Amino acid sequence: VSAPSLDLLRTRALARRLEAVLNVSDARAAARRTLPKALFEYVDGGAEDELTLARNERAFHDLTFRPRMGLINAEPKLGTTVLGTPVSMPVLTAPCGGMRLVHPDGDMGVARAAAAAGTIPVVPAAAGVSLEEVAARVPAGPRWFQLYRFHDPKLMAGLVERAQAAGYQAMVMTMDTVVPGNREQDRRNGFSYNMRINARSAVRQAPRLARHPAWLSRFVRDGMPFELANIAGPDGQRMALPAMSRMAADSQSPTWDDVEWVRDRFHGPVVVKGILTADDARRAVNAGAVAVIVSNHGGRQLDGAPATIDVLPEIVAAVGPDVAVLLDSGVRRGNDVLKALAQGARAVLIGRAAAWGLAIGGQAGVERMLDIMRAQILRSMRLMGLTDVCELNAAWVERSR
Amino acid sequence: VSAPSLDLLRTRALARRLEAVLNVSDARAAARRTLPKALFEYVDGGAEDELTLARNERAFHDLTFRPRMGLINAEPKLGTTVLGTPVSMPVLTAPCGGMRLVHPDGDMGVARAAAAAGTIPVVPAAAGVSLEEVAARVPAGPRWFQLYRFHDPKLMAGLVERAQAAGYQAMVMTMDTVVPGNREQDRRNGFSYNMRINARSAVRQAPRLARHPAWLSRFVRDGMPFELANIAGPDGQRMALPAMSRMAADSQSPTWDDVEWVRDRFHGPVVVKGILTADDARRAVNAGAVAVIVSNHGGRQLDGAPATIDVLPEIVAAVGPDVAVLLDSGVRRGNDVLKALAQGARAVLIGRAAAWGLAIGGQAGVERMLDIMRAQILRSMRLMGLTDVCELNAAWVERSR
Amino acid sequence: VSAPSLDLLRTRALARRLEAVLNVSDARAAARRTLPKALFEYVDGGAEDELTLARNERAFHDLTFRPRMGLINAEPKLGTTVLGTPVSMPVLTAPCGGMRLVHPDGDMGVARAAAAAGTIPVVPAAAGVSLEEVAARVPAGPRWFQLYRFHDPKLMAGLVERAQAAGYQAMVMTMDTVVPGNREQDRRNGFSYNMRINARSAVRQAPRLARHPAWLSRFVRDGMPFELANIAGPDGQRMALPAMSRMAADSQSPTWDDVEWVRDRFHGPVVVKGILTADDARRAVNAGAVAVIVSNHGGRQLDGAPATIDVLPEIVAAVGPDVAVLLDSGVRRGNDVLKALAQGARAVLIGRAAAWGLAIGGQAGVERMLDIMRAQILRSMRLMGLTDVCELNAAWVERSR
Amino acid sequence: VSAPSLDLLRTRALARRLEAVLNVSDARAAARRTLPKALFEYVDGGAEDELTLARNERAFHDLTFRPRMGLINAEPKLGTTVLGTPVSMPVLTAPCGGMRLVHPDGDMGVARAAAAAGTIPVVPAAAGVSLEEVAARVPAGPRWFQLYRFHDPKLMAGLVERAQAAGYQAMVMTMDTVVPGNREQDRRNGFSYNMRINARSAVRQAPRLARHPAWLSRFVRDGMPFELANIAGPDGQRMALPAMSRMAADSQSPTWDDVEWVRDRFHGPVVVKGILTADDARRAVNAGAVAVIVSNHGGRQLDGAPATIDVLPEIVAAVGPDVAVLLDSGVRRGNDVLKALAQGARAVLIGRAAAWGLAIGGQAGVERMLDIMRAQILRSMRLMGLTDVCELNAAWVERSR
Repeated sequence: VSAPSLDLLRTRALARRLEAVLNVSDARAAARRTLPKALFEYVDGGAEDELTLARNERAFHDLTFRPRMGLINAEPKLGTTVLGTPVSMPVLTAPCGGMRLVHPDGDMGVARAAAAAGTIPVVPAAAGVSLEEVAARVPAGPRWFQLYRFHDPKLMAGLVERAQAAGYQAMVMTMDTVVPGNREQDRRNGFSYNMRINARSAVRQAPRLARHPAWLSRFVRDGMPFELANIAGPDGQRMALPAMSRMAADSQSPTWDDVEWVRDRFHGPVVVKGILTADDARRAVNAGAVAVIVSNHGGRQLDGAPATIDVLPEIVAAVGPDVAVLLDSGVRRGNDVLKALAQGARAVLIGRAAAWGLAIGGQAGVERMLDIMRAQILRSMRLMGLTDVCELNAAWVERSR
Repeated sequence: VSAPSLDLLRTRALARRLEAVLNVSDARAAARRTLPKALFEYVDGGAEDELTLARNERAFHDLTFRPRMGLINAEPKLGTTVLGTPVSMPVLTAPCGGMRLVHPDGDMGVARAAAAAGTIPVVPAAAGVSLEEVAARVPAGPRWFQLYRFHDPKLMAGLVERAQAAGYQAMVMTMDTVVPGNREQDRRNGFSYNMRINARSAVRQAPRLARHPAWLSRFVRDGMPFELANIAGPDGQRMALPAMSRMAADSQSPTWDDVEWVRDRFHGPVVVKGILTADDARRAVNAGAVAVIVSNHGGRQLDGAPATIDVLPEIVAAVGPDVAVLLDSGVRRGNDVLKALAQGARAVLIGRAAAWGLAIGGQAGVERMLDIMRAQILRSMRLMGLTDVCELNAAWVERSR
Repeated sequence: VSAPSLDLLRTRALARRLEAVLNVSDARAAARRTLPKALFEYVDGGAEDELTLARNERAFHDLTFRPRMGLINAEPKLGTTVLGTPVSMPVLTAPCGGMRLVHPDGDMGVARAAAAAGTIPVVPAAAGVSLEEVAARVPAGPRWFQLYRFHDPKLMAGLVERAQAAGYQAMVMTMDTVVPGNREQDRRNGFSYNMRINARSAVRQAPRLARHPAWLSRFVRDGMPFELANIAGPDGQRMALPAMSRMAADSQSPTWDDVEWVRDRFHGPVVVKGILTADDARRAVNAGAVAVIVSNHGGRQLDGAPATIDVLPEIVAAVGPDVAVLLDSGVRRGNDVLKALAQGARAVLIGRAAAWGLAIGGQAGVERMLDIMRAQILRSMRLMGLTDVCELNAAWVERSR
Repeated sequence: VSAPSLDLLRTRALARRLEAVLNVSDARAAARRTLPKALFEYVDGGAEDELTLARNERAFHDLTFRPRMGLINAEPKLGTTVLGTPVSMPVLTAPCGGMRLVHPDGDMGVARAAAAAGTIPVVPAAAGVSLEEVAARVPAGPRWFQLYRFHDPKLMAGLVERAQAAGYQAMVMTMDTVVPGNREQDRRNGFSYNMRINARSAVRQAPRLARHPAWLSRFVRDGMPFELANIAGPDGQRMALPAMSRMAADSQSPTWDDVEWVRDRFHGPVVVKGILTADDARRAVNAGAVAVIVSNHGGRQLDGAPATIDVLPEIVAAVGPDVAVLLDSGVRRGNDVLKALAQGARAVLIGRAAAWGLAIGGQAGVERMLDIMRAQILRSMRLMGLTDVCELNAAWVERSR
């Protein structure tokens, strides 16, 4: 059998595998089989007792729809605009670290899948590939860049300038990562973005990794990519994940002044991520944000933080109609997207769902996740009698009894 | 042993089996053993995460009775009228597709059982036997016909005329099936109303079907009936289920104009099925419906739709006393019927309960289910001090703490 | 070993077994091991889906105490009066059928244990021993008689006269047994008060009963006592349980006229059992009851009936301070007793707890249950700072969040 | 291998074990492996059905935070003052009996760990080491003494004088132990503070204890310490635990007069422990308490008592800002501490968490628990945008939906 036909067989096998994935939960189960335990749990887990993680999902379930029958049901319109940018559906991909460990396609695969789906990828600062490479190799279209507050102002200024130069349209400033959340399963697994296989750890990890040969072979072929492509250390060298981890621990927290600082340097809209109260949403707007992302970091930071869908209405009411409110954390179904929009969100972002898709099929897996979301939204819109996602408002949902 | 005595033995064995079925849950368990997995799950399952399916049942449990003691307890009166038609109890059979796959008695068996029980069968458009055959072979009595909105106006007009001619008293227009619900277990099982056993699928399905020899032998003797008896395709030929499935996907949604269209053509009452809000109930009445069926299609269409018993009161209040409000979805016990009536329903319909009965005993199984419902209602009425189902109102129930 | 020392060994073994029983739940577990499955489930089970059975217990758990510290804590006073009769604690034994099947001590054992504990046994009409025997062999003290509404007025009149003559102080009229509840596990077990071992059933039951040799040997030595001692049939013969069962099915329901009829014939207080609403409590009082028992028959009659502790307050408010309100159904702990009294009950009755005690130790087992209840009440009173059960009121409990 | 290096190996092994303990739940699991079953359950269990024990933890989970982003995040300040005494964090160690059975370090280990952590140990009356020894061997710093109400006024007066002389700053009077709670698992285990291994019990217990060789060897080397070091009996001899147990049963309850009595004798603040209502908090203050500890004794006394975090707000409101309100029962996470402070507590006490730490590592284990609490609080403060624990108020939490 010649090489091309091997590729063809692989592609077909992947297609068949992805076809068998019918929802996000299937993707999670398949990712659990694919990834080494520590890596799977890094993606999957939440902080401490995972109270917020659990509440994120349950809070969506506590809302029911008020569907409408008998309406002229032309092809429902899923497209909307986010900060003036048209998207084919109200689902963006969330910035997630460690994606290149999950699959060699990594951040590039997520971004390309988002582009293919006609939506916006939010490329993370902690990507395994440089922001310029993403800009160069992802088909033209909107893309945003996500920024942490780094201690070194030169590093931050450099990232803002590079993102500007590379054509990123918006800058997403993450506010809820003052320190990493207390993810005990990661500590238990010895997972700290650092799975570099040296002589010693290789001996220890070998039996575990050997259970995941497909992942391992891909990982080795990708050169065991622990470096963060965007972030140079004080020595000008690209920083490896563990180094960044240490740096983060030293770093100061992001403040509203930092948001203003970014707004003054970046020639485009600034979005603030990690908002959970009306007061903070107002502060973000005062500091120059034109949009906020209601997020508890997928339950990975402060355990005991509220479910995002529960606090969304107070935030939407606080900022008024001129500020776009996005949401992430707990979105697993098209119906969750519709509920978030009915509660006032402009769009949502998916993080884990995209990462699970990436784990099982690289870029194609993320595309599958986005296709599934789109199909679920579309079907539910038809069943609800909703012709345009922009028509959603509080009258379409109800807190269930 | 001669053939008649074999029949006798079979009848006795069936009677013994049905006698051991004491409630709907028993019937479900027996149906699970009887039917091939894919078929059982088609009947049993709901859409997506089955949130609505679960809530349907739980919502009944969240209501408690306020029983009354010490009343003159003549034989309680279960009989009522629905659209002026007397029924022996406030339980009708719901229209369900695929019943002839479940058991050769199929739609005919359900209709005959309903007639035997003195109540109204709602015969589905997607029946495995023609509406005329049902009319001819079911003993005289009330029967309703259920209609989908088909793309082809001639097909719809034909069905209305045929139902009229065959003496169906009411026309039930289903509004909540714009598209099929996202029933992932059906997709996983490859179940799409199409279990035709050709050379290829037979080889694949054989080991599974062999585990259900009783069902299989009945199915083969019935000629593997995939055709829809009522619905001819554009070529005038009877349509097979898969073809209908494709057609449904192409079809436009039912609108209130369609309800008016049916009302103008059918010389009898029009009932609208699939209502979940007060607004839609009013729209249905404005379009000419004299009754509405509060239904979420048994949790099979929009996951996240509210439990029918939860929204029933607002709908009853909206349409006023001149419009009959029926309910289905989640009715598993006589007590559920009484709770629905206390919340304002005129009667309920049972779908899965009838299908499970059919699976285990054909017509006799459906009769058993209706007998069980009647006995449960009767006993609870005695225990509640209720002498007539028509006396039920909100004072008889309370939301439990 | 001589006979007396065998008895002594048996007594010691029993004492050791009972000592290991620390709460009602232990007794239930031990009764499950002791009794044949059908008999255990007859005592243990509830109607249909056991919603009411489960809610009975959960409703007690939903109340929390408001304990008071620092009070002079003389020996707490558990004693109270019920209808003017002093009892050593606010716990009576409920009337239960079939007790002689559970243990040869049967109704006599329950009554003697109640007398020994200084409280009131409510002796059931359907006892396995005559009301006169109970009166003769139970040490002097208060006792009540429980009455069903029988079809035959002579039978009822006879029972009232005999109870009067035998010195029963109060007559408890049960109102919630118009028909037996739908206890499906009893039907599944073929349990209908009729476990008579004839040639045929013996063969069938033998292997099961053989697993419970202690119970079986006691049962056979007791003469397989299926007859109801108090209830003669039309032929003047004592009626066996199955016959009574049939008779019950034919009987009319108890009405408020029947309560008046009993009040006019019985020279003592009439208590009405089975009340679940304020209206019925008022009706009972109007018909001559001086006390009511809030009861859902332990969840054995109407499934979906409310938990008694949930409806108790409305009933206490309705009848005012001159009518004693008792409660049963779901009492498993001394704390449940205290919660019921705090919500306005004068005392409670225990049914299953007594029956489980009887199963494991006859009269001594019932005494153990009453001792446990007393000890639990006493300890909790000390911990609550409550010196007299009569001081309990709504300020001592709160619905927990 | 020489002795010192064995010690060194042991210390390293312990350090490694403690490092693997990431939260209180890990410590509990490790303690379960370490301790004999009866001892583990004595520490772990609650009264009766453990309703209060379960509710204690769940009630914390029912509160969510309202975190604030973007604040200048200097090193958060965990330190506060309790009754004017500075503590490095708002977590004290609760008085617990039987600690010397858990580990030879016992009460001394807990006190030294608290001192090392810069916080206040509340040394129990029922300690296995004398209050003078604790005072002598624990590094200088604040410490409180906990007192029961003993029958013998000379014993009480002696304890007050000795505690005064030994420099204890505050006296904590426990009010909720009128009698021991009904801890059925202790009764089942034959656990009554008396595990003295005599010839007979040794034979019976040996197989069980042999499963816990590390604990057993430490226990034997410690001289099987059942004596209570602080409490002399009428004969002037130190009292063994069982004797005290009997004495407690005979003792009168603590009253508000006793609180006054202590206040008049002790030259320092009096704290009342075991308060669950606003009324009792006011009574405590009237009797001279300057602080109260809201406590249900960890769910070990009155089952059905409310969760402390649920009743905290009413108590804080009742006593006003001049009285310090502390809380224990159910604190398992730093987040629980923050929630308690947000609801008005000045600080919390940990009992089981300290005991589990003690079980697995003696003093070092308790230190580990306090370190974990501190790290969790610190991290969550950063994530919440909280710079000083003293700023916490009701605006920082919300009852979750």
